Amino acid sequence: MKQYRTTRDMLAAAALLALGLHAAIGAELPPKPGVGDLIKTSKAEDWRPLDPDNTLYMELPGGRVVIELAPAFAPNHVKNIKALVRSHYFDGLAVLRVQDNFVVQWGDPNDDDKDKARPVKGAQKTLKAEFTAPASRIARFAPMPELDGYAPQVGHADGFPVGRDPKSGQAWLTHCYGMVGVGRDNDADSGGGTALYAAIGPARHLDRNMTVVGRVVAGMPLLASLPRGPAPMGFYDKPELNVPITTVKVAADVPEGQRSHLEVMRTERPIYQAIVEAQRNRGGPFTKFSAGYVDVCATQIPVREQTP
Amino acid sequence: MKQYRTTRDMLAAAALLALGLHAAIGAELPPKPGVGDLIKTSKAEDWRPLDPDNTLYMELPGGRVVIELAPAFAPNHVKNIKALVRSHYFDGLAVLRVQDNFVVQWGDPNDDDKDKARPVKGAQKTLKAEFTAPASRIARFAPMPELDGYAPQVGHADGFPVGRDPKSGQAWLTHCYGMVGVGRDNDADSGGGTALYAAIGPARHLDRNMTVVGRVVAGMPLLASLPRGPAPMGFYDKPELNVPITTVKVAADVPEGQRSHLEVMRTERPIYQAIVEAQRNRGGPFTKFSAGYVDVCATQIPVREQTP
Repeated sequence: MKQYRTTRDMLAAAALLALGLHAAIGAELPPKPGVGDLIKTSKAEDWRPLDPDNTLYMELPGGRVVIELAPAFAPNHVKNIKALVRSHYFDGLAVLRVQDNFVVQWGDPNDDDKDKARPVKGAQKTLKAEFTAPASRIARFAPMPELDGYAPQVGHADGFPVGRDPKSGQAWLTHCYGMVGVGRDNDADSGGGTALYAAIGPARHLDRNMTVVGRVVAGMPLLASLPRGPAPMGFYDKPELNVPITTVKVAADVPEGQRSHLEVMRTERPIYQAIVEAQRNRGGPFTKFSAGYVDVCATQIPVREQTP
Repeated sequence: MKQYRTTRDMLAAAALLALGLHAAIGAELPPKPGVGDLIKTSKAEDWRPLDPDNTLYMELPGGRVVIELAPAFAPNHVKNIKALVRSHYFDGLAVLRVQDNFVVQWGDPNDDDKDKARPVKGAQKTLKAEFTAPASRIARFAPMPELDGYAPQVGHADGFPVGRDPKSGQAWLTHCYGMVGVGRDNDADSGGGTALYAAIGPARHLDRNMTVVGRVVAGMPLLASLPRGPAPMGFYDKPELNVPITTVKVAADVPEGQRSHLEVMRTERPIYQAIVEAQRNRGGPFTKFSAGYVDVCATQIPVREQTP
C-alpha cells in the first residue's frame, strides 16, 4: 500500500524549500565564524554531561568506543542491552563485519551455532521492534528547515539526529554516521541487541526499518578504520579476522577515575542552531559557493571533554 | 549576493517531490529483485571498460587504488594530473591526511617547504579552477527524479554522480564517497592536482567549490580504513605516520598483464535505472518500510572485473 503526499504536503515542502534551499553565488563570500569559532563562544549551559547510566564503553584493542544510548526512542531495547552488558554478554565477543561505506557490526561469532552460541542471561534474546517512537515522547526536538528525502521532517533532539512524521505522530533516530542499531533477521521482532551495528556510510534506507538505540560519541575512528571484511556484506570469513571486544560496560559501573568525561552540545540551544547555520551557509574565503542547505547527517553534533 | 529560487522553481521541485518522495507502509512489502539480482541479469552492452588513458593506478603498501578520471568535467586538470603522473611526480609521495568521516588526502609531505618540495616538471603547479563544466559537454546524463538539497538536479553520466543547474547551464561531479578532487588554498585557482583527496564522508558542501577530477572505482577500502590523523583536520603530524605511495601510473603505461581489467556499468542504460529504482523502493522481506527515495550519493554504481 502506498501513501502519497497531498498537494498541501507538497506546498508545505516547497515553502520549506524556499527557506532552506537558496544558494549564494559570488566571487567572494564574506567571512563568517565556522563551527570551531562558534564552539569557542559556547557557555557551560550549552553542554550536558553524558548520563553514566545510559552510556556504554566498548573496549577494543585500539581503545575505547563510547556509545550514548537513547532510551526515549527505544526504551525496551536500551533496557535489554544494559542487562546484556551487565551480564558480561559482550565481553570476549567480537567485531564480525565491516562493510565498506555501510556498517560495522559486532556480536557473537557463534550466534548461528546453538551448541556454541553464548547464552543470554537475565535479558531477552529478541524483543518487539521499536523502529519508531511517539513524537510526543521526544523532548527538545529542534527542527531543521531543510527538506529531506527520507523523512517528512528532520532535526535534532538531545544530541541525536531525528526524523519525524507529523501525520503518523512518530519520530525515529536517523541512520547518520555513528548511529548504533540492532541487527535482526527478516522478522521485524527478531532482534534484541545481541548483535549491534554502527553506520559508517549512507544507511538512511534503514530508517524506520531498524531499532536504533544510540550514537557513538567517541571512538568512531576505531570502528571506521577497521579492515573491511572479504566475505559478502563485509563479514570476516575467518575467525582470526574477528576484532576482539575486551569488555562492554555501562559507564555507571566503571570507577569514576576510569570514566570518559564527555559532554554533548545541547542541540536545542541557540548556539547549536548557529552551528547548523554555519554549515548551511558557509562564509569565505575558502568557500566560494554556499549551498544554503545542510543534510541532517552532514551536521556535526559537538562532543567535548568535560571541563570541571 | 544570494540567488533565491522562484515560485516556479518551487512548484517544479514540488512536482519532482511527488514523483520521488512517496513512501510505502505495510506489514510486509512484496519481494523485489535487489541490486545483486539485477546485476546478474545485465548484458555485455550494459558495461563499458575503463579507458586506460583516463585511468590511474595508485599503488599503496596495501594494494592498488584505481581512479577513473573524468576529462569531460575537468579537462585541464585531468591533462595536468596525467602529466604529473607521467613525470613520476607522485612516486614516493604519501597519504598525508585522513579526517574521519570526511576526506583522505595525498601529495607531497614537503609541499610547504620551498627547499624540499618536489619540483613540478612538464606540468603546471596551479591551474584555473574547473568547479563546473557546461552541461552541454556532458553526454549521457540520466536524471534522477529525486529532489536534492545541494543541486537543482542530480543524476548520473558515464558512471559518475552529477549535479546540474538548468539555469546556469552548468554541471559538476558531486562529492559522493570515493570522488576525487583537487586540493587548493583559499584562492580558487591555487590547485593544480599536486594534492588530491578522496571523499570518505559527507562532503557535498564542497560541490561547486572544488575541481573534481574522477572517482575511485576500486580500492576505496585501502584509503577509508587508514588510521585517522591525530592533528587538526586529520593531518598526520609525524612523518612516520605518512602512508607511502609506491607509484601512480596511467593504466595505458602499464603492461597489459599488470592492468586491472574493470568495467563500469553504463548509467544511461535501463538496467542501471532499474538498479536505482531497486534502491529507491526496496522490496521485502527484510525491508518493512520503503523510503521511496534514494540519495544520489547512496546509489551504488556497479564495477566488475572485465569478462573476456
